[in-house]
Amino acid sequence: MVTLLLVAASMSTAIAQTISPQMQEKAAQLAGEALADDLAYRLVESLTTEVGPRLAGTEAEKRARQWAVRKLSALGFANVRVEPFELPVWVRGLEEAAITAPFPQPLVIAALGGSTSTGPDGVEGEVAAFTSLADLAAAPVSAVQGKIVFIDEVMTRTQDGSGYSVAAVKRRNAAYTAQQKGALAVLIRSVGTSSHRFAHTGQMRRLTDSAADTGVPAAALSAPDADQLQRILRAHDGVRLRILLTPEQRPAGTSGNVVAEIPGTEAAGEIVLIGAHLDSWDQGTGAIDDGAGVGIVIAAARHLLVAGPGGLRRTVRIVLFGAEEVGLVGAKAYAQRHAQTLSQHIIASESDFGAGRIWRFDTGVDEARVAAAQELGVWIRQMGAGPGDNNATGGPDMKYLREAGVPVVGLRQNGWDYFDLHHTPNDTLDKIDPQDLAHNVAAWVSFVYLAANGGEYYR
Amino acid sequence: MVTLLLVAASMSTAIAQTISPQMQEKAAQLAGEALADDLAYRLVESLTTEVGPRLAGTEAEKRARQWAVRKLSALGFANVRVEPFELPVWVRGLEEAAITAPFPQPLVIAALGGSTSTGPDGVEGEVAAFTSLADLAAAPVSAVQGKIVFIDEVMTRTQDGSGYSVAAVKRRNAAYTAQQKGALAVLIRSVGTSSHRFAHTGQMRRLTDSAADTGVPAAALSAPDADQLQRILRAHDGVRLRILLTPEQRPAGTSGNVVAEIPGTEAAGEIVLIGAHLDSWDQGTGAIDDGAGVGIVIAAARHLLVAGPGGLRRTVRIVLFGAEEVGLVGAKAYAQRHAQTLSQHIIASESDFGAGRIWRFDTGVDEARVAAAQELGVWIRQMGAGPGDNNATGGPDMKYLREAGVPVVGLRQNGWDYFDLHHTPNDTLDKIDPQDLAHNVAAWVSFVYLAANGGEYYR
Repeated sequence: MVTLLLVAASMSTAIAQTISPQMQEKAAQLAGEALADDLAYRLVESLTTEVGPRLAGTEAEKRARQWAVRKLSALGFANVRVEPFELPVWVRGLEEAAITAPFPQPLVIAALGGSTSTGPDGVEGEVAAFTSLADLAAAPVSAVQGKIVFIDEVMTRTQDGSGYSVAAVKRRNAAYTAQQKGALAVLIRSVGTSSHRFAHTGQMRRLTDSAADTGVPAAALSAPDADQLQRILRAHDGVRLRILLTPEQRPAGTSGNVVAEIPGTEAAGEIVLIGAHLDSWDQGTGAIDDGAGVGIVIAAARHLLVAGPGGLRRTVRIVLFGAEEVGLVGAKAYAQRHAQTLSQHIIASESDFGAGRIWRFDTGVDEARVAAAQELGVWIRQMGAGPGDNNATGGPDMKYLREAGVPVVGLRQNGWDYFDLHHTPNDTLDKIDPQDLAHNVAAWVSFVYLAANGGEYYR
Repeated sequence: MVTLLLVAASMSTAIAQTISPQMQEKAAQLAGEALADDLAYRLVESLTTEVGPRLAGTEAEKRARQWAVRKLSALGFANVRVEPFELPVWVRGLEEAAITAPFPQPLVIAALGGSTSTGPDGVEGEVAAFTSLADLAAAPVSAVQGKIVFIDEVMTRTQDGSGYSVAAVKRRNAAYTAQQKGALAVLIRSVGTSSHRFAHTGQMRRLTDSAADTGVPAAALSAPDADQLQRILRAHDGVRLRILLTPEQRPAGTSGNVVAEIPGTEAAGEIVLIGAHLDSWDQGTGAIDDGAGVGIVIAAARHLLVAGPGGLRRTVRIVLFGAEEVGLVGAKAYAQRHAQTLSQHIIASESDFGAGRIWRFDTGVDEARVAAAQELGVWIRQMGAGPGDNNATGGPDMKYLREAGVPVVGLRQNGWDYFDLHHTPNDTLDKIDPQDLAHNVAAWVSFVYLAANGGEYYR
């Protein structure tokens, strides 16, 4: 309690530095309006219904860009445009798996993004089971060669998503480690926290473009299926699996980032960037990942747009990234295209963690600017969030901006349930609570307003 | 409150008639032992792991019978046997559906049991949507002919399963009503209560064996997909779907009921029948439907078997029915095979409603015997269940016995969540709470003990 009071006291002092009472009042008013509005939900509904799944580089993702341009233009934003880029495109094919011995039965799997194909006949072999990727890495070739690897590493459920960072390592690397040891294919326990019978897909790390270095065919197993396989492995030797995966890797396709702006007044050259990503995995409709973020940032900016003349000193730029899921391809394209103006990006953040409420406001700025940057979260803390640390990433698509020195903040959402749905067919509109979404919009609108008008928090 | 006290008082009077204090004490002791034991859970685990899905008439169902014979013999039951019967066998094929216009995207479906095939090219057409089966039945042919029917009837969630009885009517009949009006195919909103993205399969009604009367291809749509389709239909005309279903109907296969007994002492010719069904749908592992019932009745009988000599006056017969899901085929075969001895079946009941706790004890007996039959539930009421009505069905597989005059009781389980999982790939072991399962075994053991030893409650 003492600690909290001290923090609150130091915040009050900091607030006095750059955020005027008038600005605080305006931020509160905008947040209140956002809480009572359902624009974000209507946007997610529209995107997930009228486009649905929108895998990077596909026609569906192109329809999502057209949708975004249409919506952003109709809502009155300026400079609405697509910034296209090229990328190789991976498309899911057939995917089947079964235990063939000792107890024949089908398993529910999903190919990992970037997986190679087993060919139309599939592969069949004995299982080599490991409790972790490290366990596989330490195994001799003789324990793996000619077998199907199963990695049964369980993801930890956490509020802040830290369990994912740990668990996703196996998804990114399993196919290559298994390839080095001569495996036929690899199955991983899904990177996810639900016990529903969905397999969680997700991207593998891309090593090189050499065919010798593309990994063995790789898929995720649903949690109940991983439990089932583990039960059988504990009691029996010689457990065998059959796996069929026929994804295709197409050499070239087009994606793009969609950009829109609210031009600033006196300081129009200073950019407050707010992002989300437009692409989704192919099996769900991308409601929590990342329709929610798309709805949140557009709705927040829209509330500022109608806040009246003279509302924003700086330019607010919305960036809806393409091809996030397949390796932050849009993020890289944005950083390259805007390399000459990155120094004008004075603060940036992405909403890409579902529709859970915000419980913490993190910064990722120069140490000398932490207190000033924390002021941008003053209203978010009024809504119940705590001040966080200065290790904010700003969200996945902020990676290259952050590396280029752009200050970031993190409006950290409660991700307790996020990985129940993440990257599964079950990521659909009905999983979003409209009130939680409105809470996010209110938080973002207060942050963006203060960022666009506040003092010298960034340098 | 007054009413409850009156009921309790009348029960106390009735109990004094046939259930001695010694029997009450023994029933309580057996129930206590059952609560502390995990045999039922270990049986469900074994069946769902070592056999897994076990569709009627398939090799997998045969393995389930072998499993049951092995387990029942090893546990020490007498007269363990398979009573085989023949039946036509339906096997799932490919199943794909997509909205083709105006917003192309895939949908999650499951063919209904007994569905015909679309052929390998599938069918494509405009949607004709109806809010209910009655709505479709009332529609003119011109509104349906050449179209794909969608019936968006929502199932009501109830504790007692009454919502299912209503909703399943559309599943049983939709393909025929649609066929009469010249539809290409029919999709129904799943008969289920979950918003997870699983389609709930289930059997269609069989009309005749005439090919002209086999219905159009029919499938269930997951709830989020039905919501999606409905959203699009509300806003747009000319919505089109493509459906591919390639199930096969094979003319003949073998199923069977597995029977085992604890022979009675003085009244061995009087049979207390306790049942569950061994077959399951093909996409889950049949944990709640009906691995749970299999575990519950075997474990309950096992507690009686080890209760010591002289424990049971009457014969307790376990029947694990085959081919329940595809139309109570095993139940009919049992009633036919045992037609001459049905009058010796003095009471019968089946456990086939998952692993939820028992909240009510119903009877289905001569009106004059209701109070006496309610005494069989005396310990179940001690565990928190209320007395029910005299409309017990005894469970699906009791249909033909009941129609032949065999008295039945219903140990009614809480089915609030049952239809979240029912007939989906998500019906897996992890969904069962071992404590809830043990509660059921305790209830059953007390009922069976009193039924096998109690007075003249049945005539």
